[in-house]
Amino acid sequence: MQPAELEADLHDHIPLTRAMQVHVLGITGESVRLGAPLAPNINHHGTFFGGSLATLATLAAWSLAHLKLQDAGLDCSLVVGAVHMDYLAPAEGDVSARSFLVEPDNWPHVLETFARRGKARIPVMAEIEYGGRCVARFKGDFAALAR
Amino acid sequence: MQPAELEADLHDHIPLTRAMQVHVLGITGESVRLGAPLAPNINHHGTFFGGSLATLATLAAWSLAHLKLQDAGLDCSLVVGAVHMDYLAPAEGDVSARSFLVEPDNWPHVLETFARRGKARIPVMAEIEYGGRCVARFKGDFAALAR
Repeated sequence: MQPAELEADLHDHIPLTRAMQVHVLGITGESVRLGAPLAPNINHHGTFFGGSLATLATLAAWSLAHLKLQDAGLDCSLVVGAVHMDYLAPAEGDVSARSFLVEPDNWPHVLETFARRGKARIPVMAEIEYGGRCVARFKGDFAALAR
Repeated sequence: MQPAELEADLHDHIPLTRAMQVHVLGITGESVRLGAPLAPNINHHGTFFGGSLATLATLAAWSLAHLKLQDAGLDCSLVVGAVHMDYLAPAEGDVSARSFLVEPDNWPHVLETFARRGKARIPVMAEIEYGGRCVARFKGDFAALAR
C-alpha cells in the first residue's frame, strides 16, 4: 500500500485523523511513519497535547499491523486491547510517530496462530520523535480476529 | 469551577476537544465526568475509536487533578508522565469518562510533597462507560510542577 492510500483510508474512516491533520510519511514492511502538526494538537502549555501523541502512536501501530495482515492476505478485524505510553519530554512543534513490531522474528508464528485459532495477539511499539529526539514511547497490544 | 467553565477552558486551549465534541457532564471534589458523541470519534468498525477513548480518559483525569490543585490554591503546571489503558469492550455509541484519584486519602500528602519539593506525583484513574458498562479502564501518572 502507498502512503497516500493509507492516509485516505485513515481520513475516510477515522474523522479524528482529519482534525489532527495526520499524514503518512512512509511505509516499509517493518515500519509505518505518521506525522502531525502542532497547531491542531496544541495544549495549555503550547506543546503537543498528550492525548494527540497517544492517538498518533496508536494509529502508527495499528496501521503497521493492519498492513502486515493485509500483505499476508488475511481477512480479519484488528482491535486494540491495551496500550501504555511513557511521556519523556514535551514536544514544542510538529512530531512524527514510527511504529515497529515488538517481536518481528515472531511474525510467522503470529500468522500460524491466527490460522489455527482465528485470532492472534500482535504487540506493536511506536516512538514519537520531535526535533531529532524520542519524546514518548508507546506499546500496544492488538488482536487480529477472524471476521 | 462550574462544568461550563471547565468545558470552555478545554475548548479554548486544546482544539482537539472541540473536534471530539467533548462536554463536561459533572464535577465533584472527587470526580470529573466528561462525555463525547460517537460521530466525530468513530473508527473503521463503526465503534468509538480507541485513540479518542484514551484522549477522553486523559482529559477527565487531567481535569480532576487540575481542579483539585486549583482548589488548593497552587500555581503549578500539570503534565502527564505515563498512561495505561485497557480496552474491555467496543463502545457502539456516545460514551462518558469518570475520573477519580487512585489514592484519595493520600491527597494531603501530595500537597505536602508539592509544598516541600515544588513537585508531586498524582496518580489518577478513569473509567469509560457505554450503555451502563465499563468498556475501558485508564490509569495515568501526572506531575504537578512549580512554575
